[in-house]
Amino acid sequence: MRIVDIIEKKKLAKELSREDINYFISSLVDGSMPDYQATAWLMAVWFNGMSDDETAILTEAMINSGEKIEFGELTDKVVDKHSTGGVGDKVTITLIPLLAAAGVPIAKLSGKGLGHTGGTIDKLESIPNFSCELSVDDLIKQVNKIGVAIGQQTGHLTPADGILYSLRDVTSTVDSMPLIASSVVSKKLAAGSGNIILDVKYGSGAFMKTPEDAVKLAKLMVNTGKKLNKSIIAVVTSMEEPLGRAVGNSVEIIEAIEFLKGNAEGSDIAELTYDFAQIALLQVGICRDKQEARKLLKDLISSGKALDKFRELIVAQGGNPLVIDDYKNFPQSKFKIEVKSDVDGFVNRIDAYKVAYGCKLLGAGRERKNDPIDYSVGVFLNRKTGEYVAKGDVLFTMYANDEGKALACEDYCRAAFSVSTEKPVIQNQIYEIIRP
Amino acid sequence: MRIVDIIEKKKLAKELSREDINYFISSLVDGSMPDYQATAWLMAVWFNGMSDDETAILTEAMINSGEKIEFGELTDKVVDKHSTGGVGDKVTITLIPLLAAAGVPIAKLSGKGLGHTGGTIDKLESIPNFSCELSVDDLIKQVNKIGVAIGQQTGHLTPADGILYSLRDVTSTVDSMPLIASSVVSKKLAAGSGNIILDVKYGSGAFMKTPEDAVKLAKLMVNTGKKLNKSIIAVVTSMEEPLGRAVGNSVEIIEAIEFLKGNAEGSDIAELTYDFAQIALLQVGICRDKQEARKLLKDLISSGKALDKFRELIVAQGGNPLVIDDYKNFPQSKFKIEVKSDVDGFVNRIDAYKVAYGCKLLGAGRERKNDPIDYSVGVFLNRKTGEYVAKGDVLFTMYANDEGKALACEDYCRAAFSVSTEKPVIQNQIYEIIRP
Repeated sequence: MRIVDIIEKKKLAKELSREDINYFISSLVDGSMPDYQATAWLMAVWFNGMSDDETAILTEAMINSGEKIEFGELTDKVVDKHSTGGVGDKVTITLIPLLAAAGVPIAKLSGKGLGHTGGTIDKLESIPNFSCELSVDDLIKQVNKIGVAIGQQTGHLTPADGILYSLRDVTSTVDSMPLIASSVVSKKLAAGSGNIILDVKYGSGAFMKTPEDAVKLAKLMVNTGKKLNKSIIAVVTSMEEPLGRAVGNSVEIIEAIEFLKGNAEGSDIAELTYDFAQIALLQVGICRDKQEARKLLKDLISSGKALDKFRELIVAQGGNPLVIDDYKNFPQSKFKIEVKSDVDGFVNRIDAYKVAYGCKLLGAGRERKNDPIDYSVGVFLNRKTGEYVAKGDVLFTMYANDEGKALACEDYCRAAFSVSTEKPVIQNQIYEIIRP
Repeated sequence: MRIVDIIEKKKLAKELSREDINYFISSLVDGSMPDYQATAWLMAVWFNGMSDDETAILTEAMINSGEKIEFGELTDKVVDKHSTGGVGDKVTITLIPLLAAAGVPIAKLSGKGLGHTGGTIDKLESIPNFSCELSVDDLIKQVNKIGVAIGQQTGHLTPADGILYSLRDVTSTVDSMPLIASSVVSKKLAAGSGNIILDVKYGSGAFMKTPEDAVKLAKLMVNTGKKLNKSIIAVVTSMEEPLGRAVGNSVEIIEAIEFLKGNAEGSDIAELTYDFAQIALLQVGICRDKQEARKLLKDLISSGKALDKFRELIVAQGGNPLVIDDYKNFPQSKFKIEVKSDVDGFVNRIDAYKVAYGCKLLGAGRERKNDPIDYSVGVFLNRKTGEYVAKGDVLFTMYANDEGKALACEDYCRAAFSVSTEKPVIQNQIYEIIRP
């Protein structure tokens, strides 16, 4: 068997066999296949796609490429939530302490930034000394001890996915349905939780541009789970504009902390967090209905228990918990630049992709695998869709370390805003829920 | 400017600018772009192609990526001939000494094996100690001194092509028209000859499967030359069955020597060699018509002058000239295996690709860039299309160093032969000649 033949087969849109896919993945992981063959194959997959069977086989090969987490008796109670990635998406960070405070054990594995969106790990590691490099044993121990742990996807679990993830990021092969599905599902299945909730985003800031494509991806993932005997619930949500107001790394953690402090009630972040938490509470049987779940969740916020759980998580993973009390404990940017509106009107749309691209230019994202990230930079949207802005009001704020990069970012973020005299209708965030 | 954006642009079938292409090529050559980005781009080009303008710009960027050869006053007389590569194609090796003996200066740069076809350099380097690693100065000096030199395309000339050539070979991106055209034309133009003749092959053993595709490629190359102010003649020829009887490395050199000794008159190798030589002799004005050219060429063979010139070339480039007198001076394979026909009839077809693939399995070809090649292995076709074979007659002979590999090769080569009771009509080798 030769790798070049497997590349050629995919290039000519022929069905790959289990042997082909297993050989490709094992050669990737043992290093016998050079990266330049992997990326040619990835691009061929981008063009020709993969069948449902190929996707499931690839997913299984990636799971088997490394260690698997086993929670034993706890398995059926443990929840894992994953987002396909959106701009300003810090819902994983708000959801984890909230659910853990409700008594739902959470074991979350996450990745670094992919394409134009930030990764949950990048965001959390903006907390000084916070580390997601947990061993499998440490992760299991921590879930059993404090009910929550968040680990990094690289390393011993699905190493094949770790390598492909880095290569896709720098070769414009991120936006491929079978590659996204196999990446997400392999990570979730190797991580051993009994309850998996996937947030599948669509819109200008997501990999899937339309709700139809997001539903297709969601179904592919739920179906891949089914072929591998695992139950997955997928929630298709809108990512037309950034989620919340902050886009970057430390700025997003600050926004999540504000939610946990009870200072974000009614916001899109709060609503989506509650929605996901409700699904999880019903899924594991802690609550009987939505109303009961909602009440429990609100109590956990107002009592400060969710915030306490976040503090516990930070301490458990080596981070400085004082960031919660004083945001000056985060890395600080050199410049804070307020950009003002030059028109009056209602914000009708904020193009999430443009904001994300602007943030990437500031240094908040990653251009090449292993590039460093600037945790201190980012954008804060002072106005969101549906809000009124007067000429001279601050439209958005940039946190930057380089004035040239800030100018470039400003151009992108300004272009992201559409302002008009009519107040827009705000869309539902959840488009469809797909169950196996 | 970011490489990932250039990959994305090509992936989305957008036109690349001169800046994009120049940046891609300079990043490739200075090493700032990793190979895994280059191969993703190559695969995107395979799928989406390039416009004529993009192809010419890429060609120019590759020429400018390194040194260029300048022949000064000799430029208009120097001839360079190149084949897009076919199975058993040793016409470059037969043509060079013949033309040089006729007083036409020849400066030939060649490459290593690409895909399933062998490279002229690989074949020549099966002559013990023969080296194609000439500096540009040495090449020019040798052409001025003995009228002929053959150098390796890697190194200082078109380094960009050298890198891409190696990467294409192992990523199934060889068979792309703009990549073949830019590779061939950049090499030829950087090599400085005033007269360029291209042999563009079609058929099962060539990259272009149909004469229509070969004509398209030929026109693209002639046109690329025109856009860069250089006159190129392209000859479209058939490669449905292997050229000559030998496929491999040393076995092909032996067949070329046999032609130069006058032992191959009337063969397909002899006819095609004479055809190209005639075109060159008329192009540089040494002969007035085909008849005169043909007579001159036949005299050079029968007088031994062409063979003497080949001996002179071998000596000049450090090789052992005794290979001419005794083929035992070539590296010898461990096994010589004669494979017999199990039917009676006329050979109707020999699938060139299958024979080539069989030879690659023996070790005559290259799987990865920098893989070593086994010079001693190969296949000799005891029967060619149109010839009669009786049951029990030797159909082909394998030279091998590994019995397992020989068995695999035998399967491919047996499958390459079609034998039937009807004598087939032999096609013309030349399909079309394209001039600027």
